[in-house]
Amino acid sequence: MGISRVLPVALLLAGLGDLPPPPGPRYDATGALILPDGLDRWILVGSSLGLGYADPTDRGAGMFHQVYLAPRAYDAVRRTGRFPPGTMFALVAAPPGARGTPARQGVYAETPVRVELAVKDPARFKEGWAYFDFGPGRPGATARPLPRARCERCHAEHGARDHVFVQFYPRLRDATAGVRP
Amino acid sequence: MGISRVLPVALLLAGLGDLPPPPGPRYDATGALILPDGLDRWILVGSSLGLGYADPTDRGAGMFHQVYLAPRAYDAVRRTGRFPPGTMFALVAAPPGARGTPARQGVYAETPVRVELAVKDPARFKEGWAYFDFGPGRPGATARPLPRARCERCHAEHGARDHVFVQFYPRLRDATAGVRP
Repeated sequence: MGISRVLPVALLLAGLGDLPPPPGPRYDATGALILPDGLDRWILVGSSLGLGYADPTDRGAGMFHQVYLAPRAYDAVRRTGRFPPGTMFALVAAPPGARGTPARQGVYAETPVRVELAVKDPARFKEGWAYFDFGPGRPGATARPLPRARCERCHAEHGARDHVFVQFYPRLRDATAGVRP
Repeated sequence: MGISRVLPVALLLAGLGDLPPPPGPRYDATGALILPDGLDRWILVGSSLGLGYADPTDRGAGMFHQVYLAPRAYDAVRRTGRFPPGTMFALVAAPPGARGTPARQGVYAETPVRVELAVKDPARFKEGWAYFDFGPGRPGATARPLPRARCERCHAEHGARDHVFVQFYPRLRDATAGVRP
């Protein structure tokens, strides 16, 4: 076997350990979205406390919301100012804790209790985007799109950029400013 | 040139594009810490609003604090329960914003205004850890260790694990529970 046959295989194998996870949304055979692995490595783009737009059950409870963007979409929007098909956001809700020493005031985000995803997949969803509630977000969980009235309508109407509330995400607000959607 | 000489070089080159950035703290010729690049890709381990332990100038201002851990240290602490030499945390402070639609209540983190780092480097710092204030955190900024009374003393006394306030970081609290420091 000549070197020209060996080398490409060797290069392929050498790179396998470094391959990123599948970059876009994955669905099961019924069409339900599969909760992606590795959310802890997504990019934080927004953080809020008690913001009253996500879920009626949160209102008044004063939950922390951390909003993460999948790395591939983050790179794309910083480069182009647009959210490519396959973009995924995760909203992670956590109750406030206040367990003392050495803090004398203020609250911090305790263990998360719910994970929601927003997915841009125009080939699959008529509105372009769909929204999913994974409850406590157990590994491998699946979810079907939420009814349009639950999330999509408000995102379509009030998202400052392409259904996304970039008005609350300073880094994305800057990246998308002046770019036509 | 035989295949035995070519292949290792080819494998090395194939992997270069995937090399992580230098994993530990870097200092300039005067010994000042250089602000690392790519903080946006560090792992969020803590989030708080108005927590009164970090900096007297924040007290009463109700700043958001996001606490990030460098990826290599994050992997290590999840595997071993301990913070290895070279561990770096970043604390990013951002004022609260409340720019309306569609939010009817609550606050979100606006553009960050200050970056502080905690570094574990026992070969360099007598206490093991040192703390650095990079002000607005401009790229390439450098900072000298803060006086012990400013940060280290309280971290040493009240950090639930090895000078780290894991009591406020649920994910690290779980990772370090039951492991001897």
